[in-house]
Amino acid sequence: MEKLNLGFIGLGGRGRGLANLAVTMDDIHIPAICDLHNDYLEQAATSINELQGSLPEKYVNYQEMLTRDDLDGVIVATSWTSHVEISLAAMRAGVYVASEVGGASSIQECWELVRTSEETDIPFMLLENCCYGREEMAVLNMVKKGLFGELVHCQSGYEHDLRSEITRGGENRHYRLDNFVHRNGELYPTHGLGPIAKMLDINKGNRFISLVSMSSKSRGLHDYVVNKLGPDHPRKNTVFNQGDITTTLIKCANGETVLLTHDCSLPRPYSRAQRVQGTKGLWMEDKNAIHLDDFGDERWAPMSEYLELFEHPVWTDFIEKGVKGGHGGMDWLVLRAFIDAIKTKKQTPIDVYDSVAWMAVTALSEDSISCGSLPQPFPDFTNGKWIQRQPSPDHYWTLDGIYN
Amino acid sequence: MEKLNLGFIGLGGRGRGLANLAVTMDDIHIPAICDLHNDYLEQAATSINELQGSLPEKYVNYQEMLTRDDLDGVIVATSWTSHVEISLAAMRAGVYVASEVGGASSIQECWELVRTSEETDIPFMLLENCCYGREEMAVLNMVKKGLFGELVHCQSGYEHDLRSEITRGGENRHYRLDNFVHRNGELYPTHGLGPIAKMLDINKGNRFISLVSMSSKSRGLHDYVVNKLGPDHPRKNTVFNQGDITTTLIKCANGETVLLTHDCSLPRPYSRAQRVQGTKGLWMEDKNAIHLDDFGDERWAPMSEYLELFEHPVWTDFIEKGVKGGHGGMDWLVLRAFIDAIKTKKQTPIDVYDSVAWMAVTALSEDSISCGSLPQPFPDFTNGKWIQRQPSPDHYWTLDGIYN
Repeated sequence: MEKLNLGFIGLGGRGRGLANLAVTMDDIHIPAICDLHNDYLEQAATSINELQGSLPEKYVNYQEMLTRDDLDGVIVATSWTSHVEISLAAMRAGVYVASEVGGASSIQECWELVRTSEETDIPFMLLENCCYGREEMAVLNMVKKGLFGELVHCQSGYEHDLRSEITRGGENRHYRLDNFVHRNGELYPTHGLGPIAKMLDINKGNRFISLVSMSSKSRGLHDYVVNKLGPDHPRKNTVFNQGDITTTLIKCANGETVLLTHDCSLPRPYSRAQRVQGTKGLWMEDKNAIHLDDFGDERWAPMSEYLELFEHPVWTDFIEKGVKGGHGGMDWLVLRAFIDAIKTKKQTPIDVYDSVAWMAVTALSEDSISCGSLPQPFPDFTNGKWIQRQPSPDHYWTLDGIYN
Repeated sequence: MEKLNLGFIGLGGRGRGLANLAVTMDDIHIPAICDLHNDYLEQAATSINELQGSLPEKYVNYQEMLTRDDLDGVIVATSWTSHVEISLAAMRAGVYVASEVGGASSIQECWELVRTSEETDIPFMLLENCCYGREEMAVLNMVKKGLFGELVHCQSGYEHDLRSEITRGGENRHYRLDNFVHRNGELYPTHGLGPIAKMLDINKGNRFISLVSMSSKSRGLHDYVVNKLGPDHPRKNTVFNQGDITTTLIKCANGETVLLTHDCSLPRPYSRAQRVQGTKGLWMEDKNAIHLDDFGDERWAPMSEYLELFEHPVWTDFIEKGVKGGHGGMDWLVLRAFIDAIKTKKQTPIDVYDSVAWMAVTALSEDSISCGSLPQPFPDFTNGKWIQRQPSPDHYWTLDGIYN
């Protein structure tokens, strides 16, 4: 079997996890890895060597790594604010690029991704694993089969108590700390927004047209430092700009509204708080249930009943062949979707227009909040092509030929 | 026992219900009732006569009724857009006035309520029964006892499938129909916002400072008319301005955010979708559960456990003596709170500043939506008095002497 050569840039926890997953695939070889930190490079090289039987070449400079002529694709899993410049360089080097998730810092860098992908004809794919979540794909299937009627409103949240991770930022080199100290906005929109954008046919007959955002005060992290880590903790006087709860409203061209919640610095159980609502019913993740008009009463039916009826074909197949990879299998699926696009020389199923529409929410949200919740126009990154672009006929994110 | 004389203006379903409840109280007499519709007047007069043994005098003109000199208080339960003008007339006639809930049509009418109450020294009370809900009062108790730490974010919704009621508007004379045809905004904010405002000490050391609102497209009512009531239904071509889902964000002076959802024209089970979240934990109505940082894990504990621990004293007493009245007892409590204020010649526990802060959300939301989700400054109806005003020392809405 001919193997694809994948390079990895950024080998912190997430990058190492993805590299170790990719290298277990029969058709993948990792010839090169890159990180600024030598210990990360060594850790990754050791585990890759164990799994593939050969050491990858190690780079500190990603530009240097991109001069290699054997790379078919690169995975960028660096800190949030360096994804774009590295991805631009990869596309210019003629290499398919998949970037880990995160939000954009400016609208300009979104345009640069779009123009560079258009000019080089190289796809850029945000590795939004939640698009391949089992529930998300089943709900997409329900939506496309009309279970909820015409969609009217969707919600999602990144509701994840990250106080421990954020406040350990210095020790574990996690970039979240710096972002929470300096920024204030919807910093992590794509886990919820990606699946919703696919359900709403964003950039394919629909688009986001405006956005407004509001942040609460910031109390959770300071409170955590002082009361949990001790009154003498080095971050006891750190001022966090990031509000504890950031709420964002997005309006779509076809009239739907989308509500996003960013909730990472207060105590709470994890939830993506999804809600998909139309003229015939709705799904609520927090209730783990569905209500349909056809019930004729105010009943909620357990999600499990509908998951069984509307399992996405990709997942039916995946379960049959054995679920693999992290985050319940979705890491494996999203990586295979990227690899599949390289092998078939097709566009990635999450393309550059999808990616920037989701990433741009962060920059627009910061702008809205900085101006007192002023609504922000949402750029049309397709320059009008959204009107003619069509959702794929079977309404699925096909993973053609990945089960070979 | 000396009886209070209560007049009733507006004797549709809600007004008759409240009159029939009030007249069962030992200390209440209803000498006068008023409505534009003769059949409503007759129905109400008949049932009041049966319960109190004497017929109330019937009026079509509320101004005429307010010339009586025997009224201690009036209850206004007319259509939404006539509450204010009637309430203003009642205060000018020197009569304590309680208005059924609803939103304001303009900021000006809110100011007129404030100035008239200040100048006449007559209280105006929004009859927000949800402030006296068992769960809401228990959660208030939790908040004031610090269970959730410092509050950061609250949510609530009026999520109520009213498609049948709204589309029957012509037959049952319900004013919702006209409002849904013509307006577009957060039409019914107070059920959720009232209890939250009390938890956040609004107008007593805190206040709402700005608001932004977004509405989805309107599909639910047309879809219901055509698909449920038949393609030849007289409202088959009615255009409804009101979006199916209206979402509103409010910022508080002390940095908290409040999220409101108005969701009345799509199929769904009833929910007020409340969420109260602070530095130490949160309550979510839709999960019927509480999470606290002290748990040390990602567990949700059933609300019932905490309801038992934090039952509000008013409710402990109410349950002991026998819960009475509609909507699970809260109608009785809110009416008693109003009556209690009249008897003791005190300010009502929901005063004019509370009332207009909650009602104003409707007008501000319509303004925000009409300007493309532009943020709206929230008037300080206290003119600065919110800074010095203090929450009552025991943090409860006392119902002094109502159990006599």
